[in-house]
Amino acid sequence: MQNHSDLLDIGVIGLGVMGKNLALNIADNHYRVAAFDLDSAKIDALLEQEQKERPADKPQRIEGCSNLSEMLSSLAKPRILVLSVPAGAPVDGVCHALLQAGIEADDIVVDTGNSLWTDTVAREAQYKDQFIFFSCAVSGGEMGARFGPSLMPSGDIKAWDRIKPIWEAIAAKVDPQTGLPIERQELGNPVTEGEPCTTYIGPAGAGHYVKMVHNGIEYADMQLICEAYQLLSEGLGLSAAEVGEIFARWDQGSLNSYLMEISADVLSQADPLTGKPLVEMILDKAGQKGTGLWTAVSSLQIGCPAPTIAEAVYARAVSTQKQQRQQLSLLLAGPAPLSLSEDERGVFIDQLENALYCAKIACYAQGFQLMAMNAQERGWQLDFAEIAKIWRAGCIIRATFLQSITQAYQQAQTAGQPLANLLMAETFSLALSAKQQDWRQAVAKAIMSGVPVPCIGSALAYYDSYRCETLPANLLQGQRDFFGAHTFERIDKPAGEKYHLNWSHSERTLEKL
Amino acid sequence: MQNHSDLLDIGVIGLGVMGKNLALNIADNHYRVAAFDLDSAKIDALLEQEQKERPADKPQRIEGCSNLSEMLSSLAKPRILVLSVPAGAPVDGVCHALLQAGIEADDIVVDTGNSLWTDTVAREAQYKDQFIFFSCAVSGGEMGARFGPSLMPSGDIKAWDRIKPIWEAIAAKVDPQTGLPIERQELGNPVTEGEPCTTYIGPAGAGHYVKMVHNGIEYADMQLICEAYQLLSEGLGLSAAEVGEIFARWDQGSLNSYLMEISADVLSQADPLTGKPLVEMILDKAGQKGTGLWTAVSSLQIGCPAPTIAEAVYARAVSTQKQQRQQLSLLLAGPAPLSLSEDERGVFIDQLENALYCAKIACYAQGFQLMAMNAQERGWQLDFAEIAKIWRAGCIIRATFLQSITQAYQQAQTAGQPLANLLMAETFSLALSAKQQDWRQAVAKAIMSGVPVPCIGSALAYYDSYRCETLPANLLQGQRDFFGAHTFERIDKPAGEKYHLNWSHSERTLEKL
Repeated sequence: MQNHSDLLDIGVIGLGVMGKNLALNIADNHYRVAAFDLDSAKIDALLEQEQKERPADKPQRIEGCSNLSEMLSSLAKPRILVLSVPAGAPVDGVCHALLQAGIEADDIVVDTGNSLWTDTVAREAQYKDQFIFFSCAVSGGEMGARFGPSLMPSGDIKAWDRIKPIWEAIAAKVDPQTGLPIERQELGNPVTEGEPCTTYIGPAGAGHYVKMVHNGIEYADMQLICEAYQLLSEGLGLSAAEVGEIFARWDQGSLNSYLMEISADVLSQADPLTGKPLVEMILDKAGQKGTGLWTAVSSLQIGCPAPTIAEAVYARAVSTQKQQRQQLSLLLAGPAPLSLSEDERGVFIDQLENALYCAKIACYAQGFQLMAMNAQERGWQLDFAEIAKIWRAGCIIRATFLQSITQAYQQAQTAGQPLANLLMAETFSLALSAKQQDWRQAVAKAIMSGVPVPCIGSALAYYDSYRCETLPANLLQGQRDFFGAHTFERIDKPAGEKYHLNWSHSERTLEKL
Repeated sequence: MQNHSDLLDIGVIGLGVMGKNLALNIADNHYRVAAFDLDSAKIDALLEQEQKERPADKPQRIEGCSNLSEMLSSLAKPRILVLSVPAGAPVDGVCHALLQAGIEADDIVVDTGNSLWTDTVAREAQYKDQFIFFSCAVSGGEMGARFGPSLMPSGDIKAWDRIKPIWEAIAAKVDPQTGLPIERQELGNPVTEGEPCTTYIGPAGAGHYVKMVHNGIEYADMQLICEAYQLLSEGLGLSAAEVGEIFARWDQGSLNSYLMEISADVLSQADPLTGKPLVEMILDKAGQKGTGLWTAVSSLQIGCPAPTIAEAVYARAVSTQKQQRQQLSLLLAGPAPLSLSEDERGVFIDQLENALYCAKIACYAQGFQLMAMNAQERGWQLDFAEIAKIWRAGCIIRATFLQSITQAYQQAQTAGQPLANLLMAETFSLALSAKQQDWRQAVAKAIMSGVPVPCIGSALAYYDSYRCETLPANLLQGQRDFFGAHTFERIDKPAGEKYHLNWSHSERTLEKL
């Protein structure tokens, strides 16, 4: 696969947490890497780590470059260059620098950052004829990048054919029998068997869009877990370690996921400084980098209901306003805390487990519907079974649950009936129908105890809204026609026929427009 | 005020519902109007209506123009031209046509459409030196435009000085003693006493931003009422007329508002075709024109929590997916309907009234905070007491409640303590504290009965989130640090100091960055 001249196989530009680990992962897979960063200390750190981690019997496979011209000279042509720099202006900055350094028309630049998908579409067009601007969104954080991320490439299909062998080598792997990640993290000996978590997503922008929605789902999934934590700790008075044990148990069941696993781990972690639970020493102001809000913005613009994702973004925003919360906590009354017997506590914990599972299905349903609606608008042909498949390992939202989503889309494909909403898949409609009473009980108890559950609650409202053959939007259309003459359709007339009542006249008459 | 030559005082371009009624309103106030529309039938209809409505003792005050050059020649200089055309490209189209027709540098063009505020900022700059591009957002729908709207002008302060007399004449009026609208709709005899519902908002874009947020609040307020309707009709099995009676009663209390009043009216309206309640013949698919989603998008981008406004936009989106809802209503299980005794029903209706009031406060708090955060980002000095004042009459969200908001901001100004969040005002914190138990009961009952209350519920989660001195974002920061090395702050260390735990190492150590 790799070339055998003195020339190197692939360049990595930007050696932050993600770039560094991608470079090490690529080298583990026997490709030779040229590495560059504006900060030469980062190049040195990478080379040092490679040397330390490399088994004694393996040759050095990463070389540092002091500038981009040197990198271009060191690579076999046509070149493959991986960009791992912050989204926005830095991506264009490196592209311009590469043009000055002599990049050629059939060289491929792969943007692996969290770029806004519309920027990716614009860049492919902008750099056309100068080089091939390709993109590959990466999920999996530091450890994913190092030992196998989930990779969402999109752009020129010919570029994909060229990079595919490397991508399939470095991606996370799934056991095709079980649908579970093949978890093995051996330095220098990557996992080579199993199904790689990468697939060609579609035209320029599609991969970053799909990754953006992945992150939107991630925001919601994280917030759901946080709400369960607050309910268990404040509502039931459990310690961080006790909540961690419950989460570890849930991680063995239908809630099995990477996020549940690491939440249990975080909750059981002691603070090295004080010996207290670390989580209680962490300031409760959430950061964010934009992909969650981009997802919510896109859903609003497209008209796709994704309330649970938006609520998760807002929950982070409220968390940053700590001073306001401190003031308001003194001014605003709340209810008495939950008072439950030992038996009732056990029942409540089980209800909450089911509530979390149902809310999680609702989040994924929102995310997948959003991808489908945007794909339709853009004319992209997305394969949702494949997308669910490559999220089964490597990425932050990996969960056994994604195997069920994969199967649901595969069955829909086989039956020739596209799945307009995940809630329609039998596996999920049955699970939701069976667990919805517990979901209601958990949310009602949260509300009566004063613990905010914006995401678990919003997901339930989403579920109940879709259960309604008739929603009160009829009154809303009446209001709009009253004050703005916006007209309405009638249930007893053909779709598209518009009516207006002369509300302001003494004798009200119906007009057909 | 108006000139006494043969020249006319003001031009109105675009004679749709809003433009036509603004022209009639201006003429009622003794200004002479030049009117133009690309569709000459609309000019004829306006002239005909003016003639029909004009008292016999008044002279004709509207003249039709066959093109923009004729309009410019007919107006006194410097000219005032009111644009009432759809937002977007049509606004620029008319501006270009005016340039060709010979508009001059000190002529004022007032855009009264629902333009995106950033477009308004761009247009002021674009047309600088060619004419004065000013804007005035208008609320009040058809009837407001005709008999007194709420007007939100912004842009060049010198332009405001020139148009102010006309604006104050045509605006809705409030009784300064009671804070209530002076409701009198006499053709040809406008209300001249009282405080006019218009005030200079700020630099270009500020008026449209404030109007956008007004509409976002309106979306949420409408949806809250719709949720109450569904709860009363489906949850309690009341007829449309019975719900209308309850709404009419609520409209006499703290929930008094234009939207509550017209909702009661809509619900009691019989369908002219079938004799059934009209609302039951209206298709439950809600339309929207963009301002609600712009508000939600802006709140996400700024990081201001406005979940109830976003939920209202999503509720409209779900309503349009009727086919999916029909399918899912057959697949997804729900709970048994509410079963309440006669006494319990009365209690529930009262709880719902309080829930609605609390949720409404939360919506307004979100909207006002959003305006404040955006103003800070843009460097605008907005006077929120004045903004609340001009929303007391004329506009769609007018409500007695706005008098309390006005007073809350006035008191905060007097005390020299700016109100970071409306929930902090004593009048609201006391009301919310007193009613929050009812709010919880109403939401919990909705949830247990399966009626979706995305906005009433989301508003409660917003309230409870702000009541929390500590939110579970500490766990979220732990998760982010675990998978992405995103770092966290500590509660026992100075703000801004960042820490990272070496989660992937066998011996986990804390690093200070």
